[in-house]
Amino acid sequence: MADSQPLLSLDGDPVAAEALLQDVFGIVVDEVIRKGTSASEKCHYSIKKGAAFLGLGTDSVRVVKADERGKMIPEDLERQISLAKAEGAVPFLVSATSGTTVLGAFDPLEAIADVCQHHGLWLHVDAAWGGSVLLSQTHRHLLAGIQRADSVAWNPHKLLSTGLQCSALLLRDTSNLLKRCHGSQASYLFQQDKFYDVALDTGDKVVQCGRRVDCLKLWLMWKAQGEQGLQRRVDQAFALARYLVEELKKREGFELVMEPEFVNVCFWFVPSLRGKKGSPDYSERLSKVAPILKERMVRKGSMMIGYQPHGTRSNFFRMVVANPALTRADVDFLLNELERLGQDL
Amino acid sequence: MADSQPLLSLDGDPVAAEALLQDVFGIVVDEVIRKGTSASEKCHYSIKKGAAFLGLGTDSVRVVKADERGKMIPEDLERQISLAKAEGAVPFLVSATSGTTVLGAFDPLEAIADVCQHHGLWLHVDAAWGGSVLLSQTHRHLLAGIQRADSVAWNPHKLLSTGLQCSALLLRDTSNLLKRCHGSQASYLFQQDKFYDVALDTGDKVVQCGRRVDCLKLWLMWKAQGEQGLQRRVDQAFALARYLVEELKKREGFELVMEPEFVNVCFWFVPSLRGKKGSPDYSERLSKVAPILKERMVRKGSMMIGYQPHGTRSNFFRMVVANPALTRADVDFLLNELERLGQDL
Repeated sequence: MADSQPLLSLDGDPVAAEALLQDVFGIVVDEVIRKGTSASEKCHYSIKKGAAFLGLGTDSVRVVKADERGKMIPEDLERQISLAKAEGAVPFLVSATSGTTVLGAFDPLEAIADVCQHHGLWLHVDAAWGGSVLLSQTHRHLLAGIQRADSVAWNPHKLLSTGLQCSALLLRDTSNLLKRCHGSQASYLFQQDKFYDVALDTGDKVVQCGRRVDCLKLWLMWKAQGEQGLQRRVDQAFALARYLVEELKKREGFELVMEPEFVNVCFWFVPSLRGKKGSPDYSERLSKVAPILKERMVRKGSMMIGYQPHGTRSNFFRMVVANPALTRADVDFLLNELERLGQDL
Repeated sequence: MADSQPLLSLDGDPVAAEALLQDVFGIVVDEVIRKGTSASEKCHYSIKKGAAFLGLGTDSVRVVKADERGKMIPEDLERQISLAKAEGAVPFLVSATSGTTVLGAFDPLEAIADVCQHHGLWLHVDAAWGGSVLLSQTHRHLLAGIQRADSVAWNPHKLLSTGLQCSALLLRDTSNLLKRCHGSQASYLFQQDKFYDVALDTGDKVVQCGRRVDCLKLWLMWKAQGEQGLQRRVDQAFALARYLVEELKKREGFELVMEPEFVNVCFWFVPSLRGKKGSPDYSERLSKVAPILKERMVRKGSMMIGYQPHGTRSNFFRMVVANPALTRADVDFLLNELERLGQDL
């Protein structure tokens, strides 16, 4: 990554930063190519929802296969594009993901960018969750190729813990595209006869009318923490996730879904089911463990850890290690508490 | 209004309140009938913008004439519907406004509801600005007929000063319409095997994925201020707007655009232009006064009052009297300051 340009930079100008902030839904789509392994279960649902809202219909979203780690398979993308063209459809946007919701997978952006370049397709990268990793010199290789994207969605309110909501849409375009797409020149709101440069008024570019200046939180945080402070935050999250993984492996009642490459640590808690994978009702019994444990921790008020099924995998916990206030002691507590709450399961 | 049902009620349940909260853009449209006197200048631009985002195109929005006070003319609505049908279009939604942005006009909802009922059209009321007036027993007559609406948009962050953003979409529908329209059943986010009633999970109903619990601000405010406290806030805004109007009339350099019926007080400041309405360059000279004064107040840092042109009317100030901390002394300062800053104009 040494020769790549940093995609993200803020020049200390809050107005410039505001120009970047936009809901993820402001994407123009006509026939969308999208990652996933089956009808929809592994895609972030915002792409289908966006296609529905834009009047294109969810059928205009084609699903591209992912490998067992949840990464888009570029060869299948190539295949889906050919199939779509053969059906007379006009593909124009590919949405790759940097940091999927459940497994935290990073798509191979260089290979995907090659496909997009070859077919002249807009490359959008949904880096809502994983985009903040660019701030870490150690881990930013996960996003190699993102500098070739036409647009990137990034939520500092996720990994950086900026206050909800703080969503950025970063565009390669320098022709004031958002203004040209969204501007409606309401003369009673966006006066042109002001004493300063009205190009600084970004209100006409965005989807909403009345909205908070969400970029200010990010700007203040960046100023307060500095680039190094934010990098430390990302690196610490990776380190603590690694600690959780190693501790999990030491305990008998836990089973990793896979070695994580990000801070999503996915695991089953299988106290009395260990070694019974062959039994016919294993999967059914396993799927009931997480909901019961979740109920117990919520009723007791000690923790809240999400769980979900995923493809053919039964319900598993997904511990996302992101809060900068988390410590190793918290991770130890988490594992001890799961054992306490689930000793009879 | 004595026999009408209150449209707005919160039963102290924040979950129920959250179910109501939604962006204004979540409206399904196919051919939209809309108020205004000309191509678009007096409509709130969100309707056209919504039609663009939904893939319908701005041409699907028909503009209905308004009278000189900015109120929709029901006879012209009837006419526009007939015209649209004659052209083969299928009208299905009428968007009336309670409290327009500039003049603060309230459309005649009873007459508009009659037209909608006759033609079987969805009646949406954009009460983003004026909806809070329902909390005032004295002034709620301005919204007579709103109980017949199919949907109402209301922004407590405007007149009630709830922190940005707090936008509600109120629906007559009781069949879980938002869930049916927007729900995408992302199994990794909206688990169905929870220990409580999953109908309480409202996340799948809304446009966004990650968002703030905006309703909490309103709920806390309502609990803290009570219905009477909020009513007092609305009534005080009306009273202070009336004070501003009466003070304006006492001063020679000011001219009201019209007697307001809401808290939008629209006026010209015409120190040296008084009595020169007949002169050929009057309108052009008048249009330059507000921008110059705005620049002076912003540079000095003493005030910020919006201005805009409106139809054939040259730039005028629009003082919106809504902040509950405003006093008569502030209003006096405002008028004195305008005179100080504009004595040479």
